[in-house]
Amino acid sequence: MGKVVAAMSISVDGYVGASDPEQWFAVHNRVHNWVFGLAAWRERQGMDGGEDTISSELVGDEFANTGAYVMGRTMFNFGEEPWGEQPPFRAPVFVVTHRARQPLHRTGTSFTFVTEGLESAVKQATEAAAGRDVFLSGGAGIVQQAIAAGLLDELHLHQAPVLLGTGVRLWDHIGPDWKELTPIRITPGDGVTHLYYQFVR
Amino acid sequence: MGKVVAAMSISVDGYVGASDPEQWFAVHNRVHNWVFGLAAWRERQGMDGGEDTISSELVGDEFANTGAYVMGRTMFNFGEEPWGEQPPFRAPVFVVTHRARQPLHRTGTSFTFVTEGLESAVKQATEAAAGRDVFLSGGAGIVQQAIAAGLLDELHLHQAPVLLGTGVRLWDHIGPDWKELTPIRITPGDGVTHLYYQFVR
Repeated sequence: MGKVVAAMSISVDGYVGASDPEQWFAVHNRVHNWVFGLAAWRERQGMDGGEDTISSELVGDEFANTGAYVMGRTMFNFGEEPWGEQPPFRAPVFVVTHRARQPLHRTGTSFTFVTEGLESAVKQATEAAAGRDVFLSGGAGIVQQAIAAGLLDELHLHQAPVLLGTGVRLWDHIGPDWKELTPIRITPGDGVTHLYYQFVR
Repeated sequence: MGKVVAAMSISVDGYVGASDPEQWFAVHNRVHNWVFGLAAWRERQGMDGGEDTISSELVGDEFANTGAYVMGRTMFNFGEEPWGEQPPFRAPVFVVTHRARQPLHRTGTSFTFVTEGLESAVKQATEAAAGRDVFLSGGAGIVQQAIAAGLLDELHLHQAPVLLGTGVRLWDHIGPDWKELTPIRITPGDGVTHLYYQFVR
């Protein structure tokens, strides 16, 4: 069976986004700018070229290992238009939401709207992934819930070398119980540090 | 001239201590337990043996490169008794405090109490270090002030592989301005991940 993996781009001080909407794009771009030039990421967006680095290899591995995605509704709402007719997932995506909606079929990607909560979404994604990994790519709320509920096997932190000082923290609402981790891959990248941790069960 | 370095043992979710006093020892031990068995650390406490690992080498380098220390009064208060007649610093230590006190001379280590604030303590420590590094080892408040005031050249994070969920955050009160960092050493250790960052000036 595949693993349940959450991956987040995050500042050294633990922020994954802006709490001030006017800062949204600036912060989003700062924590993600390590990825935009990578060959593996560009290929997924239908673009040629890009850098063929260790970071590109890791991102390519994440894509290749993933059989299904789980995301929050805010992330879906932001992405629905820009992702267009050929979204970069090329796999079933399960969107956790309070509002029922018919499945959406795009080229290579389907979106299923799950109103029974995160655990159900992860279960459905696990079935759809057929032995490959289930990948949670955000937002923060979904990943926090998954950590608190003990649903994750691995956490992939792509750490952008910056202190932002303020914003949306990944580490809120994860529950007061200690969760021991095992480092499985610690890799310096170009403009990013890849910290892969496994949850000790 | 030497560098101004802050080093902290920190959980993956950014905690360096407990906010609940009853949890103080448990959290302190959990974030620091990677260090207690290292040969370089034991040698400084006057003990033989220990593990001669890459982590021990890094800790030994930190000791060897340091010409003077700066610490907060809370840390001094906790340490004064257990450090005893031969404290592990073997260098001048400058304690930032509101209460004036005569310097304290121990074997190999002196404690000077600075009432003019952190910046003055760092300046005095820089002179005393005579070309070697100034080392801030905590607590969190001193390191936060140093980050906010732009006093640091390097930040050494010794990341313990655990999510604590609650506690004293290192990343509060560091100011809203973005501070760009350059990774200078990313090293997996044994039960710890060493993340060394340089501040971009």
